[in-house]
Amino acid sequence: MADIPSDRERTDVEDAIMRATYRALRERGYADLTMRAIAEEYGKTTAAIHYHYDTKDDLLVAFLEYLLDRFLTHVHDVETTDPEARLDDLLDGLLVEREDDYDLIVALLEMRAQAPYHESIREQLARNDEYLRYLLRTVIADGVDRGVFDDVDPETAAGTLLTIVNGARTRFVVLDDSDVLHLARDAADAYVEDILEAE
Amino acid sequence: MADIPSDRERTDVEDAIMRATYRALRERGYADLTMRAIAEEYGKTTAAIHYHYDTKDDLLVAFLEYLLDRFLTHVHDVETTDPEARLDDLLDGLLVEREDDYDLIVALLEMRAQAPYHESIREQLARNDEYLRYLLRTVIADGVDRGVFDDVDPETAAGTLLTIVNGARTRFVVLDDSDVLHLARDAADAYVEDILEAE
Repeated sequence: MADIPSDRERTDVEDAIMRATYRALRERGYADLTMRAIAEEYGKTTAAIHYHYDTKDDLLVAFLEYLLDRFLTHVHDVETTDPEARLDDLLDGLLVEREDDYDLIVALLEMRAQAPYHESIREQLARNDEYLRYLLRTVIADGVDRGVFDDVDPETAAGTLLTIVNGARTRFVVLDDSDVLHLARDAADAYVEDILEAE
Repeated sequence: MADIPSDRERTDVEDAIMRATYRALRERGYADLTMRAIAEEYGKTTAAIHYHYDTKDDLLVAFLEYLLDRFLTHVHDVETTDPEARLDDLLDGLLVEREDDYDLIVALLEMRAQAPYHESIREQLARNDEYLRYLLRTVIADGVDRGVFDDVDPETAAGTLLTIVNGARTRFVVLDDSDVLHLARDAADAYVEDILEAE
């Protein structure tokens, strides 16, 4: 049921613009993310950006796809098929490995908060949420099938874990303390332990 | 250790301005929350607002205190001392009873996302988080003392529940589907069941 996140491969140029957007977001924040700021990071004119992305919203939608792709590449590189280990890797990638990404997480929360006013961004954020839920659900369902996890509903378990991830990131923005990410990682771990079938 | 949320009682005038802010936020959203918009809801001039709140940030800090006070009044009215029932009430108040407050929750997420750029708002949001954590921690500690709950660390348990609350609200903004609040309520419930001492 999960679509491939982007319909087509990004070109090298588009990839370079995405990396420039990434740097601009981290260095200047969402409020100062103008096409000009991205062009400066990219080292070309704003026209060169507009050739690929008509509006800032178009660019942000592409950027959200790019972030999802990066995460997918990262988790696909992990070569284990053990459901518990794969679930651990996913949760590490969503929580622990984010602690140095404060500025990016702030920018993402700004996009989430703006979602109700920007339909295309809202849709892409919902797709990202759906895809992450799909990843979690798949590994949990695999674990249930293999008898590693209790007979839980994979959709519910995936939603619960994603709620913990989102809550940790939101509190991280306000409290600026990576302890909240580690607390959430422990809570997710306790949840996973809880659904692990006793051997 | 928890301070009383506001240092002094609000006057009737300040209370009326807070109610006007509440209506303005729900009807126009955070981006259109100008002093003029609040004055229109209040039925007086912007000068009448500025007499009490110099800046929009001052007003938003007061508004965050007001929301916390409202919640505290609500939970203090509940007349039960049973830890499990009180914890249920708190979680209902933070999750289930919020499902008709979509516009307000969007506005609050916007404030959270803006927190890194507005020190006074960030501090007040952190105080609200701390106070809610205090409420949860106190009831859990009481339950541990009475042998109703397992010997969990109340601070950790409170942080976990607040992470679930924040995650549910963040996903609610993007997905605009109150199912995420109910899923989170179920997850919180499962957590509470898990720490309940078997009788």
